[in-house]
Amino acid sequence: MNDDPSIPQDERFSPPKNFGWLDAEYSAYGRARVVVLPVPYDSTASGWVGSREGPAAIIDASGNMELYDVTMGFEPYMAGIHTLPELAVQTAGPAEMVDRIESVVREQIDAGKFVVTLGGEHTVAVGAARAHVKRYPSLSVLAFDANADMRDEYLDSAYNHACTLRRISEVAPVVQVGLRSAEREEHDYLVERGFRFYQPREYRALGPEALADQLSDNVYLTFDLDAFDSSVMSAVGTPEPGGLHWDEVSDLLETVARRHRIVGFDVTELAPSLGPRANAQLAAKLTYRIIGLALRE
Amino acid sequence: MNDDPSIPQDERFSPPKNFGWLDAEYSAYGRARVVVLPVPYDSTASGWVGSREGPAAIIDASGNMELYDVTMGFEPYMAGIHTLPELAVQTAGPAEMVDRIESVVREQIDAGKFVVTLGGEHTVAVGAARAHVKRYPSLSVLAFDANADMRDEYLDSAYNHACTLRRISEVAPVVQVGLRSAEREEHDYLVERGFRFYQPREYRALGPEALADQLSDNVYLTFDLDAFDSSVMSAVGTPEPGGLHWDEVSDLLETVARRHRIVGFDVTELAPSLGPRANAQLAAKLTYRIIGLALRE
Amino acid sequence: MNDDPSIPQDERFSPPKNFGWLDAEYSAYGRARVVVLPVPYDSTASGWVGSREGPAAIIDASGNMELYDVTMGFEPYMAGIHTLPELAVQTAGPAEMVDRIESVVREQIDAGKFVVTLGGEHTVAVGAARAHVKRYPSLSVLAFDANADMRDEYLDSAYNHACTLRRISEVAPVVQVGLRSAEREEHDYLVERGFRFYQPREYRALGPEALADQLSDNVYLTFDLDAFDSSVMSAVGTPEPGGLHWDEVSDLLETVARRHRIVGFDVTELAPSLGPRANAQLAAKLTYRIIGLALRE
Amino acid sequence: MNDDPSIPQDERFSPPKNFGWLDAEYSAYGRARVVVLPVPYDSTASGWVGSREGPAAIIDASGNMELYDVTMGFEPYMAGIHTLPELAVQTAGPAEMVDRIESVVREQIDAGKFVVTLGGEHTVAVGAARAHVKRYPSLSVLAFDANADMRDEYLDSAYNHACTLRRISEVAPVVQVGLRSAEREEHDYLVERGFRFYQPREYRALGPEALADQLSDNVYLTFDLDAFDSSVMSAVGTPEPGGLHWDEVSDLLETVARRHRIVGFDVTELAPSLGPRANAQLAAKLTYRIIGLALRE
Amino acid sequence: MNDDPSIPQDERFSPPKNFGWLDAEYSAYGRARVVVLPVPYDSTASGWVGSREGPAAIIDASGNMELYDVTMGFEPYMAGIHTLPELAVQTAGPAEMVDRIESVVREQIDAGKFVVTLGGEHTVAVGAARAHVKRYPSLSVLAFDANADMRDEYLDSAYNHACTLRRISEVAPVVQVGLRSAEREEHDYLVERGFRFYQPREYRALGPEALADQLSDNVYLTFDLDAFDSSVMSAVGTPEPGGLHWDEVSDLLETVARRHRIVGFDVTELAPSLGPRANAQLAAKLTYRIIGLALRE
Amino acid sequence: MNDDPSIPQDERFSPPKNFGWLDAEYSAYGRARVVVLPVPYDSTASGWVGSREGPAAIIDASGNMELYDVTMGFEPYMAGIHTLPELAVQTAGPAEMVDRIESVVREQIDAGKFVVTLGGEHTVAVGAARAHVKRYPSLSVLAFDANADMRDEYLDSAYNHACTLRRISEVAPVVQVGLRSAEREEHDYLVERGFRFYQPREYRALGPEALADQLSDNVYLTFDLDAFDSSVMSAVGTPEPGGLHWDEVSDLLETVARRHRIVGFDVTELAPSLGPRANAQLAAKLTYRIIGLALRE
Repeated sequence: MNDDPSIPQDERFSPPKNFGWLDAEYSAYGRARVVVLPVPYDSTASGWVGSREGPAAIIDASGNMELYDVTMGFEPYMAGIHTLPELAVQTAGPAEMVDRIESVVREQIDAGKFVVTLGGEHTVAVGAARAHVKRYPSLSVLAFDANADMRDEYLDSAYNHACTLRRISEVAPVVQVGLRSAEREEHDYLVERGFRFYQPREYRALGPEALADQLSDNVYLTFDLDAFDSSVMSAVGTPEPGGLHWDEVSDLLETVARRHRIVGFDVTELAPSLGPRANAQLAAKLTYRIIGLALRE
Repeated sequence: MNDDPSIPQDERFSPPKNFGWLDAEYSAYGRARVVVLPVPYDSTASGWVGSREGPAAIIDASGNMELYDVTMGFEPYMAGIHTLPELAVQTAGPAEMVDRIESVVREQIDAGKFVVTLGGEHTVAVGAARAHVKRYPSLSVLAFDANADMRDEYLDSAYNHACTLRRISEVAPVVQVGLRSAEREEHDYLVERGFRFYQPREYRALGPEALADQLSDNVYLTFDLDAFDSSVMSAVGTPEPGGLHWDEVSDLLETVARRHRIVGFDVTELAPSLGPRANAQLAAKLTYRIIGLALRE
Repeated sequence: MNDDPSIPQDERFSPPKNFGWLDAEYSAYGRARVVVLPVPYDSTASGWVGSREGPAAIIDASGNMELYDVTMGFEPYMAGIHTLPELAVQTAGPAEMVDRIESVVREQIDAGKFVVTLGGEHTVAVGAARAHVKRYPSLSVLAFDANADMRDEYLDSAYNHACTLRRISEVAPVVQVGLRSAEREEHDYLVERGFRFYQPREYRALGPEALADQLSDNVYLTFDLDAFDSSVMSAVGTPEPGGLHWDEVSDLLETVARRHRIVGFDVTELAPSLGPRANAQLAAKLTYRIIGLALRE
Repeated sequence: MNDDPSIPQDERFSPPKNFGWLDAEYSAYGRARVVVLPVPYDSTASGWVGSREGPAAIIDASGNMELYDVTMGFEPYMAGIHTLPELAVQTAGPAEMVDRIESVVREQIDAGKFVVTLGGEHTVAVGAARAHVKRYPSLSVLAFDANADMRDEYLDSAYNHACTLRRISEVAPVVQVGLRSAEREEHDYLVERGFRFYQPREYRALGPEALADQLSDNVYLTFDLDAFDSSVMSAVGTPEPGGLHWDEVSDLLETVARRHRIVGFDVTELAPSLGPRANAQLAAKLTYRIIGLALRE
Repeated sequence: MNDDPSIPQDERFSPPKNFGWLDAEYSAYGRARVVVLPVPYDSTASGWVGSREGPAAIIDASGNMELYDVTMGFEPYMAGIHTLPELAVQTAGPAEMVDRIESVVREQIDAGKFVVTLGGEHTVAVGAARAHVKRYPSLSVLAFDANADMRDEYLDSAYNHACTLRRISEVAPVVQVGLRSAEREEHDYLVERGFRFYQPREYRALGPEALADQLSDNVYLTFDLDAFDSSVMSAVGTPEPGGLHWDEVSDLLETVARRHRIVGFDVTELAPSLGPRANAQLAAKLTYRIIGLALRE
Repeated sequence: MNDDPSIPQDERFSPPKNFGWLDAEYSAYGRARVVVLPVPYDSTASGWVGSREGPAAIIDASGNMELYDVTMGFEPYMAGIHTLPELAVQTAGPAEMVDRIESVVREQIDAGKFVVTLGGEHTVAVGAARAHVKRYPSLSVLAFDANADMRDEYLDSAYNHACTLRRISEVAPVVQVGLRSAEREEHDYLVERGFRFYQPREYRALGPEALADQLSDNVYLTFDLDAFDSSVMSAVGTPEPGGLHWDEVSDLLETVARRHRIVGFDVTELAPSLGPRANAQLAAKLTYRIIGLALRE
């Protein structure tokens, strides 16, 4: 926050409230390998509200975690993580907002950064994924999501959050894990088109290696937090029981990171007022863990 | 809810949860003088979230109030109040949503109804006011609002909530009471154009009669609940101290109703999760009081 | 909500807020196979409060779920689900309230409906179960519950929520699963009388088939949501750790539905203010799943 | 809490959590002039829930207030205030609960105590007032209440909270202040029977002295906290705008205490989860202030 | 947040979350006349918890206010407001923490800044006031506070929040307004020593001019938010009814600013979880208003 | 609460609100084998706030549990459980507070009591453990904790909560289970010094018997509730996913109790406002279960 050397910034002060609460040494833009883009957007949400407060809650919670990852044995932040200012909301409509996200993410990729997009509603993933597809044309998308998100249009918009994976699947192959909620038309569409989507029990039968087999070398991860069981993550707009647990998500991420190159990712749909603060903490730790897994490669 | 005579609907059941929790006798569409239109929309909100839950909270709270108005000495519900289903959100963008509101309100006016629009963010008033202006070309608008709402565009949209009174002022003369927050450009615009707007202290010096003098015979009321002092109403996106109190609002409404014809109104910006339930109760009672005042004429 | 053809009910409006948020086509009383009876009653609650708000919370959350059940592959709502108005509370005392519930449920069974009772405290199950026993004399009751509920009287009433299964066991055989809390006298009573009751670990050892062996052809389900582990369901008056998880409940329900005829059921004790909204969502999905399982037969 | 001299109770420990958080010297039953009776009862509540948690919240908050009253210049607790255990709820029905309250209060009056009853719903006042009437046959009742509470029966019970002042008025003359909500039948009843009841504005016009003129020498106070304006007190089941403010309540209490003998009182309807903790603090301070005013005589 | 010109910072992004959410042009340290020092400290709080979250809540809310002050007619932020990182908490004890605050504030004063300290508990004012006294030896202190805060020691520390004004009064003369809670010993001390302290009603009788007469030319303001009536401000550890309202505080501040030089100030005791978000908004607006009044001179 | 025989204490009253809500017969100090010491202290907490409200929440929740333990088949309370008044906070600094805890616990051990310390932050364990070490010099400590707590100093104090296990390890050997968060220096310290610490997955591989092998005959248990998975326990300052579940904690406790003598224990870090009430219930049941396991020996 204070790059000016004239500003007091000794040990009497807390670090600035960026992602990880990192000192300038590890958060300055120039030397950071990673940029975190907060997108406080939830204008198309049709259910319960509040994911626009998700990025701020994740960043706030990120100061409450240790920066050493005991399971991986290293400190991912040392690669440098810069947190951009929050993206301003485009209220003209969701198509315009998706365009804005795509352009900003694209610029950061072009600047050589590894981009982490924090939602906001899942719609933000459309812009972020598109930007990555343009840079990595052969990538595949691994989607964590409880809902099919395969509607062609919803509430009069093709960029409603309920259309997210439909839009992404139009530009890259998608493998979905965690599904347990869909309308009949979406489900039929998934089956007819031969999409690969796995309910949690199906995923457990399949295992992480077989799932990873279906991904190309470059992988973009899009993570709607409702993929987690609602006991693990209640602070989402459509919490669902019967979902994934922390250790199985963690194992899958490790497998994918070991065998593929994660080129970018998003974590979306945290609506902090709908659950305990522990949910923001989990989202922060998940974000940091994926950064670590991706950079370790 | 159950117009079918085959359905049990005796005294062992509670009344349906429409506005006022009225039995079919007083809530059936055909005989109702009043229709209540709930609009759970807050997609352009830039501050704190949740006014999309406002209409449901007001209707829920309306069952917790007595239907006899002790200050007026009569029972407004006997004119019949029908509650429409919630308006579906148009997520393509705010311009489209405003159009939808205008068309629905227009149809109800044409059907001879007195229309009460419950927001949702203040933007919903643009559609509702326009529909009334088309039916009552010479009406003036009395706006209760803490904010100038006079931006020409905000966050890339001309239909952002921060532009509400600017849009309305383009179709009808507006008198505003309760103002205590504006950006410099808005304030300059108000002054240059000769708008009549009153801070609470200015209103107190002026008095209700002198304010009413500035209105034409037909009056449309638009009520952003942040006009109230934040001790009275905290469940709004931009709560402000130094605002209006219940009795002074009540007095002004009585004066206007006595001297003018209130042809329709809206009550907007209740974000129930931002304050105590008492705020929804107040909004319900305010809505019912204005219905009573308007129908008493 | 609007059966009157003169009322606007096109795609610009959201569906009415009945269970499932179903359009009139699927929610009209006449054609509905299922009726949902909301009973907002918690007058005998001795611990933490609020289950009287449970039915409204479940119905509200039910609009946030997809109506296609991906695990069963069909859409249960197509059989028609009508939501009755909330039952009015009888404040003279719990015995009178239980009688009212029994009479209303009995009338609906006689009208050929499949009745789903939504509590409110578990006491409401006494009236609902009695009504079903009179229609299906040989039924057995499958009770999900963390507590024995076997007191003969509590806080001066035989119809206190802590006496629920005692009262039901007087009219039909009860098999209980999920138990992990009882007072000594209740536990002794269960043992002495040879009741079949299973702690979660005992149930896991037994398995769903062996448990189902103990039920007669016709089964009434009574579901106190505290049977779930408190990580899964915290919004109940007596949350208990060490309880059942979603998948094991789901499996047991499927087994019972496959081998028996579920003739009716209740879901009780959701106290929404005691936990995250995700808990209401789970209760809604559980209710819908049981409807689907029962109707599939 | 620890009267046993063998128990450590030195300055390293906080005082016990009775009303006022008083050490044994000032809270022991034998020497206390005042007893506080907590009645955590809300079984007939028809609106929003939670007044059964009121007494515990008031007692908890009472430790957060200073024991010296700066406006009166003395320390009321020095007369001794003993807090009884919470009254157990009688769940057989409200009539039985009212009887229990009456018997306990009567015993305490007979033991020479000044009794303060903390609700719970306003119904608890019926038992408390009756006990005082039997001891002080000529007393009059000063009721603070937003609602008429004059129904003869409600939700099938004559002891519903909505009947409280009707029941009390059958045994003693009642003067009510703060009224702003009633159904037509109640209002007509009040007018026909010549009851003295004052809306806040009527009270302001009348003044405290003229109101006190209407009371007999011995006065029992019953205080439904919804008499306060809902900005002052939102944590009640039926919060109403347009109510009384702290200073005007305080002034009226001082006038009554100066000219009459307050023989007992109750403070009811605090539902702590419906508003900020500050509301419990206010209720505690109100209770303590009335104790001081009554004992100063 | 991003002073590096290589970082994207165009209109697609929201401004950084400093006080006022100001762009670098108005928030860079070098050109800022004002520095805001957040001190998230509440280790000695004895009542209700959470003022350590106050500074973050005020800064968050400050982005929700307009930067043009309609009552003063200018934009205070144009003088430049820099927000320092949060002061780190010294957990060795409150004496050490007060020293840290004093040293940091002193350094900022020496650097020519106007310092605004945001608590945290009121104790933080001791350090801030001391630093100002050393720079402005003849200053007097205007304290807004509901509590006397005149204990010599409390809970074994001389730097407990309950000792704040005692400590300050040892280095500068204090005039207190808003008092309505004290223990007898504190009250006696105030009277014996001839302190000037005013209950709200006493202040109303006195008026702002007469109060200002008692202050020296240079004034340090210390603002414990519980000086406000608890309807206006409930999010404090010791909310008290009978307090000051917004307009009377605003008037007093204007009078003092007109006649004296405000050399620095603090705003303390906001515990955001204890009240609605509107309370943080009010604290932000109060802070901004005082900045404006002080700089206008 | 009322040991005085003159006080009414019949069945019309609820029991006093001590741990277990026990009547005097089972809660009087003289005959109680167990004392519960509530320590509402969280002054060094650096993350999220509120563990000072933990002891009151646990004691409140303990009245909502059955006193018969269905898994053990006996009633632990019959040994007598006395709840001491809350320890007063020493605000001079954490070192002084730890000393106070140690002295009080020591006195109770010397009086022959089994001491249960309820935090408050984990720091309280330092005092409690020290007191037990002095009485049982050869004891080992079994620590449940998500964090290493091995910092030598943090935020300028050696008695910060982040130093808890470092301080305890200086007086007795520590075995830690549940770890999943540490800074690099702590982790290196643990490894270099040969500490035995187990992440949840490591513990699952190891099993309870092998873990118990590492403990000496006398065991002191210190339980930071964040050892639980954050789905099980969210109401802690540093909730972490990937943690322990109820049944595995329960199994480990049973193994340890069977093979060792538990001489005392603490349960700490419940911050009730950060999660659902169910978390307080779990903490109460955990406390009661450990009492039962320890006394059964």
